[in-house]
Amino acid sequence: MALTNHKFLLAARPVGMPKRSDWTFTEEPVGEPQDGELLVQVLYISLDPAMRMWINDFRSYLPPVGIGEVMRALGVGIVTASRNPRFAVGDHVSGLFGVQEYALTDGRGVTKVDSRAVPLPKYLSVLGMPGMTAYFGLLDTGQPKPEDTVVVSAAAGAVGALVGQIAKIKNCRVVGIAGGAEKCRYIVQELSFDAAVDYKSEDVSRSLRKHCPQGIDVYFDNVGGAILEAALAQLRLGARIVICGAISQYNNTGPIAGPSNYLSLLSNRATMRGMRVLDYVDRYPQAGAEMAGWMAAGKLKSREDIVEGLATFPETLLKLFKGENSGKLMLKVS
Amino acid sequence: MALTNHKFLLAARPVGMPKRSDWTFTEEPVGEPQDGELLVQVLYISLDPAMRMWINDFRSYLPPVGIGEVMRALGVGIVTASRNPRFAVGDHVSGLFGVQEYALTDGRGVTKVDSRAVPLPKYLSVLGMPGMTAYFGLLDTGQPKPEDTVVVSAAAGAVGALVGQIAKIKNCRVVGIAGGAEKCRYIVQELSFDAAVDYKSEDVSRSLRKHCPQGIDVYFDNVGGAILEAALAQLRLGARIVICGAISQYNNTGPIAGPSNYLSLLSNRATMRGMRVLDYVDRYPQAGAEMAGWMAAGKLKSREDIVEGLATFPETLLKLFKGENSGKLMLKVS
Repeated sequence: MALTNHKFLLAARPVGMPKRSDWTFTEEPVGEPQDGELLVQVLYISLDPAMRMWINDFRSYLPPVGIGEVMRALGVGIVTASRNPRFAVGDHVSGLFGVQEYALTDGRGVTKVDSRAVPLPKYLSVLGMPGMTAYFGLLDTGQPKPEDTVVVSAAAGAVGALVGQIAKIKNCRVVGIAGGAEKCRYIVQELSFDAAVDYKSEDVSRSLRKHCPQGIDVYFDNVGGAILEAALAQLRLGARIVICGAISQYNNTGPIAGPSNYLSLLSNRATMRGMRVLDYVDRYPQAGAEMAGWMAAGKLKSREDIVEGLATFPETLLKLFKGENSGKLMLKVS
Repeated sequence: MALTNHKFLLAARPVGMPKRSDWTFTEEPVGEPQDGELLVQVLYISLDPAMRMWINDFRSYLPPVGIGEVMRALGVGIVTASRNPRFAVGDHVSGLFGVQEYALTDGRGVTKVDSRAVPLPKYLSVLGMPGMTAYFGLLDTGQPKPEDTVVVSAAAGAVGALVGQIAKIKNCRVVGIAGGAEKCRYIVQELSFDAAVDYKSEDVSRSLRKHCPQGIDVYFDNVGGAILEAALAQLRLGARIVICGAISQYNNTGPIAGPSNYLSLLSNRATMRGMRVLDYVDRYPQAGAEMAGWMAAGKLKSREDIVEGLATFPETLLKLFKGENSGKLMLKVS
């Protein structure tokens, strides 16, 4: 019974927005697990802004995806064959399975997940990388105190929506920056943010001055560019900026724009610090348990934007960079 | 016996490098101290990069100097008349006396200094603002650990030379970036830095890679611009960048250049933090005592670049921005 694996390989290093011709969509027979290996049928594939960095010819916290290699991606799936004692057929698992239907793996970095307690897609959002990023980025790097004013960009996105809700749980005032009336309505009405700034229709600097009259204590940045500058201009003494990403800059064909008013760090004795979620692997279980508790208590909501069909990968990925997704973007493998 | 006070007023907000026509050199009779006031004859006037920021129409940690006001400056002098019980005629004092020959003051922010123990100019360098900036910026904000690689820019300057020497006292490896062979020779041979990078004749990025093979743990930035970017490109995991100044950018007529590779903070889980020396006023005495001890032990050297004549102020100030001073720049009032 020969199964076929469809997969996306990186064909070329994109210049600017990735095009379909930057990918090769191909197929091959599914292999058999060797001793110690397991075969995973991938059910959901996470699409993340970081993917754009992984395909640049530049080592950041992970080496770049090579030309001709399967595109790197997080996913959840089900074990269909196993010669690894840690995993049994029928187990649900999460891991870096790639943009493909089947993954053969030796089990390193693969985690069992419980699909009865929580729907599988949540393991790519609240209980996955975005959740861990929001949790440790806000609490560990941002160090919010009760009554602090916390501002988050890409606030309706997978990470931003969680950052804002966790800040509310910690008794902060929360202002979200998002693109469009629907996203702004969502974060204020459904997620209970204190205010929203629509960067598509408002002057962000002026709105931040209005909504943060005493200045910003914690700014969680997912976007970089002009919005980072607007936040820098409104810092309070001793403010903390968490650098989580810079999605506005990832498809630049020239250099990334650095914040021209970074000397606001000097006049406000403020801190800008990068966070890398992989540094917290040891603490994921504790964070996951706390986040699951908040979910069960109705304090932590998330929405997933699930697109059907592996073949749509090149176009679906672009939704992230155009701000067209609502909630955590992922592919459902048919 | 009517004394005359010569002084420099700000005449216009400079565009780019300050010109002589941006200043008014004028004179007036010296006033008499009122109850609670004292009259100080200014002996040395400190010329500092921060002066360029003070004359922009922009509030940073201090309000801007107004048009028609005496230019703000730190200085040391001698009390020539006093109706303030804290000060007696003949006391040596330091304070924000301005670019002028005589200052009438109510004594707020004025400190007595001991000219027998230490020559007066040192109260504008090691035991003054540059010394406090180096001490707290490096130790409190930079948090160096023994064996760390510490890099400092403007390394032969008033602050940079002290940062490097304090880092050596704390058993760090120290690399200084300075302009020209003489400054590089000075910091290595006389101040015992481990290495020097001459930004005027070397590729700074390449030299930093060579001298910091394991990356930079602490980067103390006085200059901003391309040198900040070169340091960001060579960070070690968990690095700390101290933002103390950005002298390369102060005379820009356009916006300041922000560091285009600031996402290195993300991939290296690094921190960039501003330091404001005025936040440490309460701890100046403790730091001054420790620095004086290091000076007495021969571990902390400094040189002062003393230019004679108040009238040279507009031209002498520019030495800072052209990198022409060697050591702490100050005016000796004739």
